[in-house]
Amino acid sequence: MADPRFFPTPATRTVAEIAALAGATLVPGAPADRRIDGVAALEGAGPQHLSFLDNRRYLAAFKASSAGACLVRPAYADSAPACMAVLVTGEPYLAWALVLRALYPRPRPEPRTDPTASLDASAAIDPTCRIEAGAVIGAGARLGAACRIGPAAVIGPGVELGEETEVRAGASLAYAIVGRRCVIYEGARIGSEGFGFATKDGRHVRIPHVGRVVIGDDVEIGANTTVDRGTVEDTVIGAGTMIDNLVQIAHNVTIGRGCVIAGQVGLAGSATLGDYVVIGGQAGLGGHLTVGSGSVLAARSAVKGDLAPGGVYAGVPAIPIGEWRRQIASVARLGKSSGKAT
Amino acid sequence: MADPRFFPTPATRTVAEIAALAGATLVPGAPADRRIDGVAALEGAGPQHLSFLDNRRYLAAFKASSAGACLVRPAYADSAPACMAVLVTGEPYLAWALVLRALYPRPRPEPRTDPTASLDASAAIDPTCRIEAGAVIGAGARLGAACRIGPAAVIGPGVELGEETEVRAGASLAYAIVGRRCVIYEGARIGSEGFGFATKDGRHVRIPHVGRVVIGDDVEIGANTTVDRGTVEDTVIGAGTMIDNLVQIAHNVTIGRGCVIAGQVGLAGSATLGDYVVIGGQAGLGGHLTVGSGSVLAARSAVKGDLAPGGVYAGVPAIPIGEWRRQIASVARLGKSSGKAT
Amino acid sequence: MADPRFFPTPATRTVAEIAALAGATLVPGAPADRRIDGVAALEGAGPQHLSFLDNRRYLAAFKASSAGACLVRPAYADSAPACMAVLVTGEPYLAWALVLRALYPRPRPEPRTDPTASLDASAAIDPTCRIEAGAVIGAGARLGAACRIGPAAVIGPGVELGEETEVRAGASLAYAIVGRRCVIYEGARIGSEGFGFATKDGRHVRIPHVGRVVIGDDVEIGANTTVDRGTVEDTVIGAGTMIDNLVQIAHNVTIGRGCVIAGQVGLAGSATLGDYVVIGGQAGLGGHLTVGSGSVLAARSAVKGDLAPGGVYAGVPAIPIGEWRRQIASVARLGKSSGKAT
Repeated sequence: MADPRFFPTPATRTVAEIAALAGATLVPGAPADRRIDGVAALEGAGPQHLSFLDNRRYLAAFKASSAGACLVRPAYADSAPACMAVLVTGEPYLAWALVLRALYPRPRPEPRTDPTASLDASAAIDPTCRIEAGAVIGAGARLGAACRIGPAAVIGPGVELGEETEVRAGASLAYAIVGRRCVIYEGARIGSEGFGFATKDGRHVRIPHVGRVVIGDDVEIGANTTVDRGTVEDTVIGAGTMIDNLVQIAHNVTIGRGCVIAGQVGLAGSATLGDYVVIGGQAGLGGHLTVGSGSVLAARSAVKGDLAPGGVYAGVPAIPIGEWRRQIASVARLGKSSGKAT
Repeated sequence: MADPRFFPTPATRTVAEIAALAGATLVPGAPADRRIDGVAALEGAGPQHLSFLDNRRYLAAFKASSAGACLVRPAYADSAPACMAVLVTGEPYLAWALVLRALYPRPRPEPRTDPTASLDASAAIDPTCRIEAGAVIGAGARLGAACRIGPAAVIGPGVELGEETEVRAGASLAYAIVGRRCVIYEGARIGSEGFGFATKDGRHVRIPHVGRVVIGDDVEIGANTTVDRGTVEDTVIGAGTMIDNLVQIAHNVTIGRGCVIAGQVGLAGSATLGDYVVIGGQAGLGGHLTVGSGSVLAARSAVKGDLAPGGVYAGVPAIPIGEWRRQIASVARLGKSSGKAT
Repeated sequence: MADPRFFPTPATRTVAEIAALAGATLVPGAPADRRIDGVAALEGAGPQHLSFLDNRRYLAAFKASSAGACLVRPAYADSAPACMAVLVTGEPYLAWALVLRALYPRPRPEPRTDPTASLDASAAIDPTCRIEAGAVIGAGARLGAACRIGPAAVIGPGVELGEETEVRAGASLAYAIVGRRCVIYEGARIGSEGFGFATKDGRHVRIPHVGRVVIGDDVEIGANTTVDRGTVEDTVIGAGTMIDNLVQIAHNVTIGRGCVIAGQVGLAGSATLGDYVVIGGQAGLGGHLTVGSGSVLAARSAVKGDLAPGGVYAGVPAIPIGEWRRQIASVARLGKSSGKAT
C-alpha cells in the first residue's frame, strides 16, 4: 500500500512470479496466476497484496489476514486462511526483502548537478553523479561513478566516495575515505574532531586530530549519527556494517565487517569490535575495550571490560545474559520479600 | 528580562490585565494598577516583573523575591513577601504559559521566499508561506497556508505540510504527511529509511521502506530527533504529541494523541504507545511492544514487555514504580550489609 | 602518519626540538639529532615517528614499538626498546597535545565570503571572518574577528560570536551569545525552544521561551549536540567547558567552568553543574538538580538528587562509587548463589 505520491506503483505480478523473486515454493494447488499489485502488512492486506509472517507475535494476524499471498515458514503453512496463496520459505524476512527490492528498486535519478550546488573547481566528480540543491563539495574531493549527494549535504575537502555511494540531505563528511555503495543518512556527521584533550591547571588543551574516518564498502550510517575521526590513527568501519540513527562512534574506534549497531548506541574512544558483532539499542562500550567477533550485546547493556567472541551479553556492567537474567530474578525476589517484610 | 535583541519588548500591562490574561484572581488589596513590563524568574525579578511559583523547591526563592507580581497556588499566597502583588490560580504553570503567550506572541513574519531558496517548479506552495535562505523544496511537495521553512531546511519530494506548520533550520523531511500547526525543530530528520534488513550468509540485505511518516496536528518534534518511515505501513504520530530533542523513533512505531516524550528516548521498531503516554528522558522501548494509554515511564526505564494502561513504571526492565523502589532499597541494604561484612 | 590529502605535512624536527615543544627531558645518551617527520600510534610507528605512552594498557605495545621517539612517564623510561629516543615527562598526554599543536596548527584560511552564502545586510561581520558556501547569517548578527562559519551553517538573527569562534558545517545557532575561541561542531543545535508546556484538559500549551543560550570563552560543543535556550532566564555554559557529541542540554541548565561532558549525556531542565564537573558517556541528570564542583559521574550514571562537590558517583540512582561497587558485587553474588540453588 505504498503511497504513489512517494513510490512508483510496481507492475502487477502473478503469484508464481512473486515466488520466483522470493525464492519461495508455492503450496500445491495455490493460485499461481493470481495477480498481486502491491505489498501490505498482514492486518491491512487485501486480496491483491503480498504480505509475510516472520515474528510469531503476528500469528493471529496471519490467520485472520485477507492477503492474497503470503511468505511463511513451512511450519505455519497449514495455519493460513483458505483464500491465501501460501509461499513457503525458510527465510520469510529475506524473501520479503528480495521481493520488495524487485518491486521497489532504488531510484536511479539522471545525472545532474543542481545550479545552486557549490562545487570546488578542484573536486573530481564523476559525470554520472547526481548533486542536489544546496550541496557543497570541497577542494580535492573525489566522487566515484553514480554517487548521489542530497540537498544541503557537505562533502569536505579531500573526502573520497566510492561508486554508487549516497549522502542524504544535510549530512556532512570531512577527513573521510568512504567505500562503494554506502549510504550516509540525513544529518550524519562523519569526521568531526574527536573528544580528546589534556588538562593542565584546569585548562583543557585540545589535541589536534590528524587521523581519518575510513569506511568500507556497503556500509550504512544512520540519521544524525556521529563518527569522529582518529587522533593519529584512523577510525575504521568495516565493509557491510549497518549503523542506525543517533549512534556515537568516538575517535579511533575500530569496527569489523558486517556488524549491526542499533539506535543511540555509544562506542567510546579506541573501542574495538570484531566482525559480525550485534549491539542492541542504547547500549554503550567503554574506551579501549574489545568485543570479540560474533558477540551479541543486549539493548541497554554497558560494556566495562573486554568480552570474548561469540557470547551474548546484557546488563551494566555487561555479563553473560544467563547470569544477568539470574541477577534480575534475584533482585526481583529480594524486592518482593522486602516489600512483604515492611 | 527577555533580551530585546531577540524578543520585542512587550507593552506594559497592569497587574489587573495580567490577572485577566492568566485567568488568575488578584488577592484582595493587591495593587491592581501596578505596571508590569516583563517576566523574570523569582530570584532575578524586580518590582516591574511578573514571576511564578509552581515547584515547591523554589518556595524559599519565592519568599525572598522582589517580583512585582507573582502567579501562585492558593496555599502559598500567605507566604508572599509584603510588596508582591499575588495572583492566585490553581494552575500557576498554565497561567504563566498563557501570560507569556500574550506578551510574546509567536512572530508572524511576512510571506516571502528568499532568492537563495530552491523550489521545484511542481511544488504547490501557498503564497502566504515564508521560505528562508538556502531552503530546498522538492518536486510535488505541498505547503499549506502560512507555513515557515527555515534556513537550509529540506522538504523532500511529495511531502505535505498542513497550514501554519514550521520547519526550523537544517531540518529535513521525506516521505511525510504532516498536520497543521506542527513544529519540526532544528536538524530533526523525518522519514529516513528504517533500520531493517535480512541477513543471508553474513550479508545484510536492505529492505526497501515504502511506508511513510504520518504526523497529526499540533505535534512538535525536537532538535536532531529522528523519525524513520515505515517499511510498508506508516510510522504514525498522533495529534498533540510533544517530542523532545535527540529522540529516536524507529520504523512502524505508532504513537497516540497527546503523548510527551522527553530527550534521548528511543522507541524501537513497531512499538506502540497509546494516548497521553509520558516517557522520561533516556528511556527505551523494545520492538513490537505496547504501552497502554495514560502510562508514565520514569526517566531511564527500559520497557521489555507490554505495559498496561494507566500505570507508572520504572527500572530495567520496567516494572511498577513502587516495586522498583523496593528493589532499589533492597539492593542498597544488601550493598551496605555486605560492605560491613568485608 | 597523517594523510597529506587532509593535513599538510609538518616540517621535520630533531628529537631535541620535539623535546622542547613537549616540555620533556631527553634521556641521557638519546639521539638528540634524530629526525622526526610525523606522529604515529605505538604499533604503527616507524623510526621517523614520534609516539607516546600514557595508558598502562599499551605498555606491551610500547616495549615492542619501532617508534623513533616516544613521550613517557619516568617510571616507564627503562622499559623502552633500545632504539627509541625516550622523552621523559610527568604528563605524556599533555606533552603529546603540545607537540601535535605545534606540528599541526589549526588552519587559518584567508578571510573570504563564499558567493553562495546568504548574509543579511544588517549583520555586523568582521572583515577577517571566513564564511563558507551556503552559510546563512541573519539580521543583526554580530561576528567578531576571524570567525569561521562552515558550509550550510546557520547563524540566527541577533546571535553574537566572539573572535576566532568557529561554527562547523550544518550547525545552527539562535538566541545565543557565544564567547571567543569557541567551536560549535557539525550539526550542533544551539538555542532551540526548550521542552516546556503546561497541560490543560489533555492539551499541551507551549510556553514561549524568551531566554537565551550564553556560552563563555573557549567552549566546545560536539557534533549534533542540542542546547535549548532558557524559558525566561538563560541557559549558561561556563568558559572552558568541553561537550562531546549528541549531548542534550535542556532549557535553563547552568554549567560551570571547565566541565567535561562526554557523548550522549542528558541534562534535564534547570540542572546545575558546578565548575570542573566531569560526566561520563550516556549519563543523565534529572531536572532542577545540582552537582557540586569537581564531582565525577561515571558513564551511564543517573542523578536523581543533589550531589555534593568533589565526589565520585556511579549507578542509577547515582551514589558514591565505592557504595555502587559493593552493590554490584552483592547482586553478582546473589545471582550466582541463586543460580546454584535452582
